[in-house]
Amino acid sequence: MAENQNFLNKAFHLLEKSMAAKNYDRENALVVDYRDPKDMAKEIDFDLEGNGRKYGDDELLQDFEKTIKLSVNSGHPHFFNQMFTGHDPYAVAAGCLLECRNTSLYTYEMAPVFTLAEKSVINYLASLTGFGESYNGIFVPGGSMGNFFGLNLARNLRFPSVKEKGMTEVKKMAIFASEQCHYSIGKGAAFLGYGIDAVKRIRCEESGRMSVEALREKVKETIEEGIVPLMVVAVSGTTVMGAFDDLEGIAKVCKEFSMYMHVDGCWGGPALLSEKRRHLLKGIEHADSFVWDAHKMFGATQQCAVFVTKHKDLLKQAHGQAASYLFQPDRYYDVAYDSGDMSIQCGRKADAFKAWFILKARGKKQVDLMIDHAFGIAEYFADLIRDTEGFKLVHEPQCTNVCFWYIPPCLRGNGERDDKWWQRLGKVAPKIKEKMMRKGSMMIGYQPLGHRVNFFRIVIPHLNSTKEDMEFVRDEINRLGKDIIV
Amino acid sequence: MAENQNFLNKAFHLLEKSMAAKNYDRENALVVDYRDPKDMAKEIDFDLEGNGRKYGDDELLQDFEKTIKLSVNSGHPHFFNQMFTGHDPYAVAAGCLLECRNTSLYTYEMAPVFTLAEKSVINYLASLTGFGESYNGIFVPGGSMGNFFGLNLARNLRFPSVKEKGMTEVKKMAIFASEQCHYSIGKGAAFLGYGIDAVKRIRCEESGRMSVEALREKVKETIEEGIVPLMVVAVSGTTVMGAFDDLEGIAKVCKEFSMYMHVDGCWGGPALLSEKRRHLLKGIEHADSFVWDAHKMFGATQQCAVFVTKHKDLLKQAHGQAASYLFQPDRYYDVAYDSGDMSIQCGRKADAFKAWFILKARGKKQVDLMIDHAFGIAEYFADLIRDTEGFKLVHEPQCTNVCFWYIPPCLRGNGERDDKWWQRLGKVAPKIKEKMMRKGSMMIGYQPLGHRVNFFRIVIPHLNSTKEDMEFVRDEINRLGKDIIV
Repeated sequence: MAENQNFLNKAFHLLEKSMAAKNYDRENALVVDYRDPKDMAKEIDFDLEGNGRKYGDDELLQDFEKTIKLSVNSGHPHFFNQMFTGHDPYAVAAGCLLECRNTSLYTYEMAPVFTLAEKSVINYLASLTGFGESYNGIFVPGGSMGNFFGLNLARNLRFPSVKEKGMTEVKKMAIFASEQCHYSIGKGAAFLGYGIDAVKRIRCEESGRMSVEALREKVKETIEEGIVPLMVVAVSGTTVMGAFDDLEGIAKVCKEFSMYMHVDGCWGGPALLSEKRRHLLKGIEHADSFVWDAHKMFGATQQCAVFVTKHKDLLKQAHGQAASYLFQPDRYYDVAYDSGDMSIQCGRKADAFKAWFILKARGKKQVDLMIDHAFGIAEYFADLIRDTEGFKLVHEPQCTNVCFWYIPPCLRGNGERDDKWWQRLGKVAPKIKEKMMRKGSMMIGYQPLGHRVNFFRIVIPHLNSTKEDMEFVRDEINRLGKDIIV
Repeated sequence: MAENQNFLNKAFHLLEKSMAAKNYDRENALVVDYRDPKDMAKEIDFDLEGNGRKYGDDELLQDFEKTIKLSVNSGHPHFFNQMFTGHDPYAVAAGCLLECRNTSLYTYEMAPVFTLAEKSVINYLASLTGFGESYNGIFVPGGSMGNFFGLNLARNLRFPSVKEKGMTEVKKMAIFASEQCHYSIGKGAAFLGYGIDAVKRIRCEESGRMSVEALREKVKETIEEGIVPLMVVAVSGTTVMGAFDDLEGIAKVCKEFSMYMHVDGCWGGPALLSEKRRHLLKGIEHADSFVWDAHKMFGATQQCAVFVTKHKDLLKQAHGQAASYLFQPDRYYDVAYDSGDMSIQCGRKADAFKAWFILKARGKKQVDLMIDHAFGIAEYFADLIRDTEGFKLVHEPQCTNVCFWYIPPCLRGNGERDDKWWQRLGKVAPKIKEKMMRKGSMMIGYQPLGHRVNFFRIVIPHLNSTKEDMEFVRDEINRLGKDIIV
């Protein structure tokens, strides 16, 4: 490895430089230095099929530097495009350590420190959710996978034979989830062999929150159709509108019909860490399982998602295969520390270390403040644009998402807001988005939702978002959008 | 972020130090500085539930340094415990860049460089497998997940309605795999709703290779039972013995019975990169899909696994959900670049960048030499111990795994090798393993397999393994084991 020492030192130096404060400077640093695919291929030689020559270290360092420059600057304070950002420097350091120590979190033998760190985070989370003395958990490669785990545990709890016999030998089952739940529920239903049709979409209130009454009705209908009501997936913080389902209300319905209750808290779960915001997950203690993404509103780098269940042995029961080449029972330590057989993965990154390190580095109090701060900034932004000409809130913020339309001057005035007007409005966000990208001044996402045409969604998962940032967003959208003709 | 700059610089410095050549020095560096769980908890304060105080940077840097020290030194030349090691410095650098640039590989917008790098690796792999002009692929969080993808694509190709309708409305299906296939096939069958019983285990020849004749017989039996023969999972490089299934023979059976053919090349797949070893995967061009782990015999850090299929649209057909908040069709670039909807994940690490960077850094020729070198070293080790007193090969090496028993003096001699003798032999490996761990001089795994009692498995995925390393292994096992009484 010695011959590559020089390269590695230079690469580390470039990375250190990339993390320097000036690259995240609001005034001078770009959020993105966008290139269309064809232009990007002029900057970096991606081809591997040609002569397949060995590139020299100097060329590689150039690629390295360009990759840094041309990748999205997701830690910039004006990046609001996805539900992650900010990348806490403590998480970055922990993540780089994982690369350097390169291991897999399946046995204590191979990952002693990370095994204990993972258990510690799970314990902490279980205490936050009020899961009592009997629980278990594991980090998973993303929140979608955490939802898949919920989908699989539910059927294994109800019909343990499904593991051996498969779905052809059990009754048809239904999964209830709000019509605004994350698309991973559909993906999971398809992947796990339920089929997408097994997901019964429950009507939402205008806020994006699942109607508990509609849920109860749907469950009854489903039973009448001879289908087993297996589980409800409740959402704490929907992807677009940030709605928090009524966990207490849903828990009652689950109890009434003996259904499993999984809570997708990938986005809004961290509200649990804030005294002031915790009420949003009231009733979480009734859940059978819960997932949250520490790489979203918590500052960990991709990926860092954790699944916790109240059923201590269910992960192993549902997923275990006891492969003898990996999980030797005749070990020199207590093999109860080996976590791997609770997973569906074999090799597994020790993402837990990042969450654990952030929690130590920030401490309970600061984490609480950070989460509450993000909520406060979202509220500030909503207040800011509520009465600004040209802006229209899609809804009052519930989490740290704020959804809004920008109405350019060409669409203002007192004319009728008919279908055609809305169709034209739906063309505004994509146009502004392109201008934003080519200018590189900020990044915000947009999407349609149900009957609503394209609107912007700003998400504030940022450690350091300020009121001034919110004012910048408003002003920048105005600058980019005021001359748009749709 | 500025306030944490100082911490980050110091952390990078520690990581740079951890990668220094002296830490991988054969004479002076430990492979592992083992602590039992209780002792480990004395070194590092794992608890998060107590007062939850904020730790200072100095304390955190101490934790950081201890984590480096007390984690397994998996890059050490005497680490042979898992199928990964060596961690190519180019991959480490690329992996750290991914942490610093923190993004998710689902849209070109969010990961322009990584999107093009991924496509490039997929193109290269497809050319190696001879998949022709029509193919597609995606990086997945581990080889197990790649096998799951194969299991899901097979049924979606045969019964496209399974995505919507689920497994209760299709016929019962069978998955054929060798009795020595990886345990992820069973995990996947359970997780995807086939049920473990759907996996029909095919008898292996003594070498660990699936008997094609037994496969054909089993398929016929299954059809007689009224079950649909869906697919065969062939293995290129089994986990324990390193056997390569006869892909051409299996392909014929697949064709005969219209079955999907998935090849699990997680371990042995890189043989494709070596002119001399490529013949081991003869027939790979007949496969419908293929997975290999670049984090195994290729030096990438965890995780870096890639799935390739010959069916261009099948990944999207099977996994796609077209979530409008993420995959806006009205984008400012060609959305065919957006890879996310081919995955079952939402957020996805850009692991592809590591594989791409290694391929550029090493070049075709050097990669070929490295792979061939690892095979050669395994053969050297087998030669070395074949005639050494106290060592007994379980089998002739086929890949870079060498499986062997160590027979301590107390079990040598001309006495009968009856069941009791074998039982005693089975206790040797765990005892030596514990001594090895507590001494920290090397790491090798062991396991039983079928009727065979515990034996050692050394795996050579190492870039830099030498003949002297092999001699060290032999001598060290002798040193650790010669006085053992079982």
